[in-house]
Amino acid sequence: MTAPILTEAIFTLTTGPVNAYPDVMRALSMPIMYDYDPYFLQHYQHVCQKVHSIMHTQEMPLILHGEPVLGLEAAAASLIGRDDVVLNLVSGVYGAGFGEWARRYCKELLEIRVPYDQVVDATMVEEILRLRPDIGIVCVCHHDTPSGTLNPVVEIGHVVQQHGALFLVDAVSSFGGMPITPAMAHADVFVTGPNKCLGCPPSLSLVAVNHAAWEKIASNPSAPRDSILSLLDWRYAWQCDHPFPFTPSVAEINGLNAALDRYLAEGETQVWARHALTAQACRAGLKAMGLSLWAADEAFASPTATAVNVPPGIDEAQLRATARARFGVVFSAGKGETLGKLTRIGHMGPTAQPMYAVLALAAYGGAVNALSTTQLDIGAGIAAAMAIIGSDRTPVV
Amino acid sequence: MTAPILTEAIFTLTTGPVNAYPDVMRALSMPIMYDYDPYFLQHYQHVCQKVHSIMHTQEMPLILHGEPVLGLEAAAASLIGRDDVVLNLVSGVYGAGFGEWARRYCKELLEIRVPYDQVVDATMVEEILRLRPDIGIVCVCHHDTPSGTLNPVVEIGHVVQQHGALFLVDAVSSFGGMPITPAMAHADVFVTGPNKCLGCPPSLSLVAVNHAAWEKIASNPSAPRDSILSLLDWRYAWQCDHPFPFTPSVAEINGLNAALDRYLAEGETQVWARHALTAQACRAGLKAMGLSLWAADEAFASPTATAVNVPPGIDEAQLRATARARFGVVFSAGKGETLGKLTRIGHMGPTAQPMYAVLALAAYGGAVNALSTTQLDIGAGIAAAMAIIGSDRTPVV
Amino acid sequence: MTAPILTEAIFTLTTGPVNAYPDVMRALSMPIMYDYDPYFLQHYQHVCQKVHSIMHTQEMPLILHGEPVLGLEAAAASLIGRDDVVLNLVSGVYGAGFGEWARRYCKELLEIRVPYDQVVDATMVEEILRLRPDIGIVCVCHHDTPSGTLNPVVEIGHVVQQHGALFLVDAVSSFGGMPITPAMAHADVFVTGPNKCLGCPPSLSLVAVNHAAWEKIASNPSAPRDSILSLLDWRYAWQCDHPFPFTPSVAEINGLNAALDRYLAEGETQVWARHALTAQACRAGLKAMGLSLWAADEAFASPTATAVNVPPGIDEAQLRATARARFGVVFSAGKGETLGKLTRIGHMGPTAQPMYAVLALAAYGGAVNALSTTQLDIGAGIAAAMAIIGSDRTPVV
Amino acid sequence: MTAPILTEAIFTLTTGPVNAYPDVMRALSMPIMYDYDPYFLQHYQHVCQKVHSIMHTQEMPLILHGEPVLGLEAAAASLIGRDDVVLNLVSGVYGAGFGEWARRYCKELLEIRVPYDQVVDATMVEEILRLRPDIGIVCVCHHDTPSGTLNPVVEIGHVVQQHGALFLVDAVSSFGGMPITPAMAHADVFVTGPNKCLGCPPSLSLVAVNHAAWEKIASNPSAPRDSILSLLDWRYAWQCDHPFPFTPSVAEINGLNAALDRYLAEGETQVWARHALTAQACRAGLKAMGLSLWAADEAFASPTATAVNVPPGIDEAQLRATARARFGVVFSAGKGETLGKLTRIGHMGPTAQPMYAVLALAAYGGAVNALSTTQLDIGAGIAAAMAIIGSDRTPVV
Repeated sequence: MTAPILTEAIFTLTTGPVNAYPDVMRALSMPIMYDYDPYFLQHYQHVCQKVHSIMHTQEMPLILHGEPVLGLEAAAASLIGRDDVVLNLVSGVYGAGFGEWARRYCKELLEIRVPYDQVVDATMVEEILRLRPDIGIVCVCHHDTPSGTLNPVVEIGHVVQQHGALFLVDAVSSFGGMPITPAMAHADVFVTGPNKCLGCPPSLSLVAVNHAAWEKIASNPSAPRDSILSLLDWRYAWQCDHPFPFTPSVAEINGLNAALDRYLAEGETQVWARHALTAQACRAGLKAMGLSLWAADEAFASPTATAVNVPPGIDEAQLRATARARFGVVFSAGKGETLGKLTRIGHMGPTAQPMYAVLALAAYGGAVNALSTTQLDIGAGIAAAMAIIGSDRTPVV
Repeated sequence: MTAPILTEAIFTLTTGPVNAYPDVMRALSMPIMYDYDPYFLQHYQHVCQKVHSIMHTQEMPLILHGEPVLGLEAAAASLIGRDDVVLNLVSGVYGAGFGEWARRYCKELLEIRVPYDQVVDATMVEEILRLRPDIGIVCVCHHDTPSGTLNPVVEIGHVVQQHGALFLVDAVSSFGGMPITPAMAHADVFVTGPNKCLGCPPSLSLVAVNHAAWEKIASNPSAPRDSILSLLDWRYAWQCDHPFPFTPSVAEINGLNAALDRYLAEGETQVWARHALTAQACRAGLKAMGLSLWAADEAFASPTATAVNVPPGIDEAQLRATARARFGVVFSAGKGETLGKLTRIGHMGPTAQPMYAVLALAAYGGAVNALSTTQLDIGAGIAAAMAIIGSDRTPVV
Repeated sequence: MTAPILTEAIFTLTTGPVNAYPDVMRALSMPIMYDYDPYFLQHYQHVCQKVHSIMHTQEMPLILHGEPVLGLEAAAASLIGRDDVVLNLVSGVYGAGFGEWARRYCKELLEIRVPYDQVVDATMVEEILRLRPDIGIVCVCHHDTPSGTLNPVVEIGHVVQQHGALFLVDAVSSFGGMPITPAMAHADVFVTGPNKCLGCPPSLSLVAVNHAAWEKIASNPSAPRDSILSLLDWRYAWQCDHPFPFTPSVAEINGLNAALDRYLAEGETQVWARHALTAQACRAGLKAMGLSLWAADEAFASPTATAVNVPPGIDEAQLRATARARFGVVFSAGKGETLGKLTRIGHMGPTAQPMYAVLALAAYGGAVNALSTTQLDIGAGIAAAMAIIGSDRTPVV
Repeated sequence: MTAPILTEAIFTLTTGPVNAYPDVMRALSMPIMYDYDPYFLQHYQHVCQKVHSIMHTQEMPLILHGEPVLGLEAAAASLIGRDDVVLNLVSGVYGAGFGEWARRYCKELLEIRVPYDQVVDATMVEEILRLRPDIGIVCVCHHDTPSGTLNPVVEIGHVVQQHGALFLVDAVSSFGGMPITPAMAHADVFVTGPNKCLGCPPSLSLVAVNHAAWEKIASNPSAPRDSILSLLDWRYAWQCDHPFPFTPSVAEINGLNAALDRYLAEGETQVWARHALTAQACRAGLKAMGLSLWAADEAFASPTATAVNVPPGIDEAQLRATARARFGVVFSAGKGETLGKLTRIGHMGPTAQPMYAVLALAAYGGAVNALSTTQLDIGAGIAAAMAIIGSDRTPVV
């Protein structure tokens, strides 16, 4: 067993796992409590109530004890029954991936697919819902992270609601970093996690299910029960006098609690504003260096991640390796269809601070320049970013 | 959102979640790394190799990213196919629960059921295997924690191996605290977790699958793929050049790494010895106080937990509440059929220290005496425990 | 550089350094702030205000940045001038040691010395003050830890106040664990630290100086200035618009802050009660085992530490080594004149929990029995302790 | 007791207290050990041996339990006797401050004083030593942090050695961040601390004393004994069979141990290189923005801190407040004579990473631009810094 030869990165500016806030890290190291100790039972209920408070739902959201891929698979398995016609909206790798789960459980799967640098238009959804009134469930990924793009879930949700279908939204990497809640999206099932914009490590899912969706799930014979994939099992587990279906992740609950306290203390508006400002500064800088965003239209680029096109002639993996080796900065690669074509710079939780945009620009530009004969004007990039940051009137801290 | 009114327990002597070792707690608070950062990829491989090293398997064991109930459900779902005749051995609540999963996936489920204060005899298994040569899979819970009893998996495994069936062992709360490994048990699939005797928080599973079981799983059309329940998805994920099926629980991996380092440094023999000594001292003390063990025969009481019968006339919940309120000590309740009948005292990981037996005896005896007119002789109990501890020649630390 | 061959102790039941509370340990790992950052300036002021609040003084107490030996030396150097006649009260090693500092700074040093298992009577002080009206300063150690005995500072303070002298009290290992404050003791200078009953690591002193003492110090030409020994330098440093004389111990301030929050949340009465109960249980047990306390009269044995006489024929160092090796329990040795004669069991901060008395009795008794032919009745000892603990009506937690 | 209204800074780029390394922060939260526990005694000796190893001395250096101002005052008090003629070299606030201590203990104090943007030339020292052969001790501050300048201690040390005087060097904020050791400086007493370039919180001093200096101290009747100011008391305390004069700062020792492990693992050459590169990049950037260094000659600007002149018409305090409020970056003010005239950017320990120079430039430039009508060209500054960083061939991590 040899010791690791590589050292840790200095700056992790990825789209997840992201750095955790310092108080979250400390909370993870609290003594481990027995899950049925009255203190923990009460603590767990308080944590759920704080999740409730930040998600602004009527029903109590669930905490599931696996990273958000569990929340998504469980939501698909629970909501979608053998008789359902499902419309899945695909503008990226995650949207497409969700379709595989939906297909597994439904009677018929329909999909709207757009190029991965585009997003799905609400009018397209409206049209297909008109043509296929039997569509009972519509699914969408809000922020398709491998593309850094945001589907217009507010508009789509309105259309789906008018149609009377159930709306399942994957908001894993947008919730907590921008103005989006289950109610805003008219979502019946809304899946997110603490490991992106809330600044926790990956290991938990947060799932909001409204009354209509609970009715559907409860009447779905194929909805998992006695399973890690079950939403039903956890429905009332937040109540301190209800048993847990299985042992909750005690340390991660402590971390989540600290993240929620911080989010509530800072205030969602302020949290969202620093995510937006960081993204805006980052993009102004990239463009000033002559680089282009992956998103066909910046209007739907996410405030929580910036996907930038790799300049021609440069190997994307080598670009990230260079940024890490020379500057200590780690970025995220693309994924699936976007792998090798773009690099992703995260603006999530603790890294949603405008000055990290400056760091990102310097490291990304520096890495490009190290690998290319054409030299980017890093100074111009950072000047553009600083003009955005400097003109903001909100104190950073 | 009101603050918790209850305070934390002083001593958590439960059967899980158990206290984590201090170095595990600190490791949980390490900076969160990007899962595809080369440092983390290498780190993850090293952690898997250490798991390999402590499980003494030929194949590389899997880390699954949910507490062991995930490992068990995934093992059932992966190994058991629609054509399989399965023999499930039931000597307690967990064994019975596993039967529900087995039934979900198999063609026919057979069970040997014994009273929950008994264990399954290998000759009974031999007999039924002779009668039903079509049994292809045998499942057993090694330490059925709600009863504190150990099925004789070494003997049963031998019988199953002779028969040619696959053997699936739940060793969640025994592995790491006593001499048991997949090879010792002749297990083809062996499920455990770091959250019991290894002294980590609950959130991960460890699953050892041998060559024969991988063959069976790979050829099982109903084995989950693209699912949190999939073993196949994670088969090669330990290799640092293989992608993760989804994001691993970075913080928990860091905690596990610290637990493995400690286990390897202390040495399994020494770790097992202190679990055994703690249990032995605890039982000598309980008996000297006139209390009785749940296990019909102490020979099959687990070294990792002691289940003690509640004295007549005392409410078990009130007993634990008294131990907590007066003495700051938290014990585990029974579960299902054993709930209310017994109390469980954990000897796992950091609490597998003989002096915790003394604490447990004092708190348990003190709580009984507070609720009863007949008074236990606590002094006699502790004297008996100390006689065991004091006669041991292994230094505690 | 070889790795340590010894392992950590399991239970540290010493008279200091004591275990820190878990929240104190976590607070120590907070990000380090710049001392002149406005956040830290405000934080430091808040911490001082909390110290103020728990010491119940009129003037703001000082935090000095070294363990309490610094506070004591600084107090001696600051208060005692070349023209002062000082009366030092000696009932133990620490009282005697303070005399050395007092002698260094004063014109004439008088001492009342009693055997180290006795304490100084207030009438003796009254007598000598009557005989020597020129005595301007009286010094005493409240809890002389190496003897585990408490001088009657309330009565002595009253006498000193009547006389008109200044009264300097070393309350390092009593404050925070029993009902004693500067006002109760009529103390003009009162030195303590967070590293005993408040449950912090050693590294800071807390010094309360009242108006009269500040006047004396300010007019003392030999009082240190521009020195780590200066009280004057730090007088106003608690105010967030005053500079620090030198860099404060940022991490330790964070730890202290957590300890103060805990102390205030639990409430001093409750904290003191659990110290007292732990000591009472410990002593009842020792006596029931046939052991004797060092203190000539249990009435002046401290609730924060129990000094027990080593049974004849046993080597004290070997006794502690045995307790550690066999039972994982670490006790404190005596010091100076008491070294080898007694063992000290701490009841301070997190170990001031009655059940630690049980642990201590078992380990101490077990170690004696391992080294002696006459065998102590450990059961009787613990039964006696449990009778005390069990009859208490205050919930432990 | 109101809650703090200010939030924590995002980036602390000060000259101390500096951020601690993450592993140092975790080490601070280890369980607190009894100082006389054999494990701690051995641990303390190991830590001392590691200090020895990084200081490259013959004699074992001392750890003193207070931040380096204690080390300096103790060194002055111990080394300088009533019969000594002392030459103190003053090129800044700290050098001048040391003179006050020297004056307190010596017979006659001579000083060479240069403007605070200059450093002392070795030939000046040579000259005065020739004129005053009775000078027995020469004192200098290597890196006078409030000026960010380095006195040429190697050359001065050579001259002092030739003369036969003892040489006392304050290397608090240079050691560990650049090639300087007691031997390189021909220092007889060399004072530093873990809280600057080693990346620990402030609370300890490291003092190297060579044989000649120990002889002098041992024969100095006014050298403190039985005092926190004593070097003699701690001379042999590193040996695990020697008592501590008073309780060491257990948590801080654990933090130091982690810092030493990291320093040794990374290697001093690599550590020094990243300090130098960060400073070089920072300065290139400042100059490219049209700003000027405080140091009259960049050749003697320290690699561990950059002191930059405040542009005319700008209030320095307001400048730092703006950098904090808008960009989340905290810098250090000047001190004493340099207060208000310059801002200090630290490159110490964890912030000695070139990319922090980029952050510093952006924040400093942004703050100037926010307060001034003349606008700095931030882009040009960062381009210049990146040209330095990008041309370096050493991997950052």
